[in-house]
Amino acid sequence: MRWKPYQRDSDVAYTFGVFPTIELLQQQPGQVREVLLHPDGQRNSGLEHLRALGVAAGVPVTVDAKLVERLSPKENTYAVGVYAKYAMTLATDAPHVVLVNPSDMGNLGTILRTLLAFGVFNLALIRPAADVFDPRCARASMGALFGARVAYYDDFEAYRTAYGGHHLYPLMTNGAAQLPAVRFQPLFTLVFGSESAGLPDAFRMRGTSVTIPQSAAVDSLNLSAAVAVALYASQTAQSVE
Amino acid sequence: MRWKPYQRDSDVAYTFGVFPTIELLQQQPGQVREVLLHPDGQRNSGLEHLRALGVAAGVPVTVDAKLVERLSPKENTYAVGVYAKYAMTLATDAPHVVLVNPSDMGNLGTILRTLLAFGVFNLALIRPAADVFDPRCARASMGALFGARVAYYDDFEAYRTAYGGHHLYPLMTNGAAQLPAVRFQPLFTLVFGSESAGLPDAFRMRGTSVTIPQSAAVDSLNLSAAVAVALYASQTAQSVE
Repeated sequence: MRWKPYQRDSDVAYTFGVFPTIELLQQQPGQVREVLLHPDGQRNSGLEHLRALGVAAGVPVTVDAKLVERLSPKENTYAVGVYAKYAMTLATDAPHVVLVNPSDMGNLGTILRTLLAFGVFNLALIRPAADVFDPRCARASMGALFGARVAYYDDFEAYRTAYGGHHLYPLMTNGAAQLPAVRFQPLFTLVFGSESAGLPDAFRMRGTSVTIPQSAAVDSLNLSAAVAVALYASQTAQSVE
Repeated sequence: MRWKPYQRDSDVAYTFGVFPTIELLQQQPGQVREVLLHPDGQRNSGLEHLRALGVAAGVPVTVDAKLVERLSPKENTYAVGVYAKYAMTLATDAPHVVLVNPSDMGNLGTILRTLLAFGVFNLALIRPAADVFDPRCARASMGALFGARVAYYDDFEAYRTAYGGHHLYPLMTNGAAQLPAVRFQPLFTLVFGSESAGLPDAFRMRGTSVTIPQSAAVDSLNLSAAVAVALYASQTAQSVE
């Protein structure tokens, strides 16, 4: 095989499905190495659009049923985008989200989609963390991965050293401020802990720690819901400089 | 087998895993028919708690490796709760959420958890709709299913006839009001369309249709993120009666 099933240390990654592959070709055309089509998808109207985008980007477009089936663990994948993984750096003059030790690739993709919906394009991940190039993440993000900047750091201090000018808002169940009362600085960083453990207590002393008010009926909001709520609030309740 | 793998028309349903089974026994003890344990889970500290809850509820607690494995499609399930499905009605004096044609059982469970986190315990589902008793929904809800009231209706008018006093807030991409400007009546119903299609245009004329402001970078927020954001806003921006 020219291309092998995805592994975390692969140099290339894949999109599965017509929609994420179109997003890949539109947002990151220079990274794409090949577009693979399955002959069973000839009647899918998106495939012609995909073929045209591939040709415009100077990318080979190949029909290869066997290779599509071997790369994609799901049935009924009509298109696979093969692309070289790429390094990204975060913008210094834009808001960030930091996820400390996120473990679930599907959640990570959903969160990327939510970030872009609220106009936040920069995401830092603190290791150990799920692999943003895993095809399951790209799929869950509905292609939002290719419009975002995502950077990994070995620990939170490494992130903080690189972006010291951002005002920190760690989201915690015992934060110092209640979310509706917080006025966010325009250059903010929202920090979230893992799905299972949340953030360590030491984050209470960093910036303005924030709690989303919630009932006692469940343990806590899930991570992607908490990110959505905090991003919404950060967009609608900004402090005047 | 005494119990058969779950199907939508079954009279009994199942919880898979220690945590949701504890929630089932605490919230709906009268519905539980049996608790099944897997012998490999003897060292799981939650199992003793589960056994004690089962005994207190007068429910047989049985160790049966084969039955646990046949009922649960996932490996490493140490506990299964067997319970009779039950009909629920919505409270007339509390806020509601209505989902029109939700198709994904995992999303439905996540949304139930989010509802309870924001103190909303009443959910109406307009058919066709995913099955709330499917074990995948109970699992994704982290047991929140057992603290909620969920009722199905054949169409939106049937729901509306039953609960005419609630103020309707349909969430739409072309709603008449922007979410941050809306002051919610305390007796509200938030209405959401399906993951793929949203709500039909006719909902713009029902109550106060609402849009969550978002960037053009993605098509739309996913359903569970939209529910989380709208519920947060409904709790923090209520009109004074």
